[in-house]
Amino acid sequence: MPHYTALVTLLAVALYFWTGLAVANARQKFGVVVPATTGHADFERVFRVQQNMLEWMPIFLPLLWLFAFYVCDWGAALLGLVWVVGRGFFILGYSQAAEKRHMGFFIQLGASGVLLIGALAGIIWRMTHGG
Amino acid sequence: MPHYTALVTLLAVALYFWTGLAVANARQKFGVVVPATTGHADFERVFRVQQNMLEWMPIFLPLLWLFAFYVCDWGAALLGLVWVVGRGFFILGYSQAAEKRHMGFFIQLGASGVLLIGALAGIIWRMTHGG
Amino acid sequence: MPHYTALVTLLAVALYFWTGLAVANARQKFGVVVPATTGHADFERVFRVQQNMLEWMPIFLPLLWLFAFYVCDWGAALLGLVWVVGRGFFILGYSQAAEKRHMGFFIQLGASGVLLIGALAGIIWRMTHGG
Repeated sequence: MPHYTALVTLLAVALYFWTGLAVANARQKFGVVVPATTGHADFERVFRVQQNMLEWMPIFLPLLWLFAFYVCDWGAALLGLVWVVGRGFFILGYSQAAEKRHMGFFIQLGASGVLLIGALAGIIWRMTHGG
Repeated sequence: MPHYTALVTLLAVALYFWTGLAVANARQKFGVVVPATTGHADFERVFRVQQNMLEWMPIFLPLLWLFAFYVCDWGAALLGLVWVVGRGFFILGYSQAAEKRHMGFFIQLGASGVLLIGALAGIIWRMTHGG
Repeated sequence: MPHYTALVTLLAVALYFWTGLAVANARQKFGVVVPATTGHADFERVFRVQQNMLEWMPIFLPLLWLFAFYVCDWGAALLGLVWVVGRGFFILGYSQAAEKRHMGFFIQLGASGVLLIGALAGIIWRMTHGG
C-alpha cells in the first residue's frame, strides 16, 4: 500500500469535512435555515467553497491513487500536499471575497494536471512494457 | 480483496442511488421541474437528503477502504453497516421534518470518526512497523 | 492493476472536468456571477449537467472498480466506455433542452446496472468459492 498517499488522503478528507463544518457555522451566523442554501451572500460563498471541494474530490482522489499505483507513492503524496495547500488558499480567499479564490484554485488545478499527465503516462508505460 | 467491505460499498451506493430516485419522485409529486432545485419546502428537504448523501460519499468511501486495507475487512464492514443504518435514519427523519435529521446524522458521523481514527492509527502503525 | 479500467477512469474524470469548464464558460456567457447558481435557464441546465455528473461519480467509480477487481478488467472498461458515451449524449442533449437528456441518461443507467449486478455476482462468487 502507498502509505504516504493514504496519509494525504486522510488530510484531504479532513480538510473537506472542515469546509462542511464551516457551512454549518455559517448557517447559524447568517441565519440561513436548512434546507435553504441561499439568502445571504457571505453564507453563499462559504457554501460554494464546500461545494467546490465536493466537485473536486472525484477528480483529485482517482488521479492521486492512479498516480500512486502507476508512478510512485511519495510523488503522489507530494503533489497531493500541493493540492491540499492550494485548497487551503482557495478556502481562505473565497471565504473573504469571490475575487480572492483564483490563486489557490490554480495551484490545485496545476497539481491535478500533473497527477493526470503522470498517471496517464504511467498507465501507458505499464501497458506497453508489461507488468 | 476485502469482500465484506465490497458488499457494504454496494449497499451504500444502492442507498445513495435510492435517494436520487426519491428526488425524481419528489419532482413529480411537488411539481418542481428540472433544472430547478427549489420551489417547494417538501421537495427541498428530499433534495437536501440526496445532496447530503453525495457530500458524504467522498468522506465515507475513502475512510471505509483505508480502514479495510490498514485495519481489517470485517471491522470496516461493520462500521460501514452502522454508517448505512445511520444514513437510513437520517433519510427517514429529514424527509419528514428538518429537525428529525439529527440522530441519524450523528450515528453516521460517529461511525465515520471511528473509521478515520482507525485508518490513521493503522497507517502510522504500518509505517513505523514496516510492511 | 486493471490497466484498461484505469484508462477509462481517466476518461470519465476528464469528461467530468470538462462539464465544470462548461459551467465556467456559461457563467460568462449568461452573466451568472459566483456564488450564484441560478438566474438564467440556459445556465441552470449547464450547471445541472455538471451536478448530475458529480452525483453519479460516487456511483460509477466504485461499481467500475469493484467489477474490474471481481469480474474482469476489459469487461469493466467496456461498460465504462458505454457509460462515458451515454454521459456524452446526456451532456449534449441536456445542454440543448431538458427533454433531450433522457436517452443518454438511460444508456449510462443501464451500464451502471450491469456493473452493479456483475460486481455483486463476482463478490458473492468469490466469497462462496474462496480466494
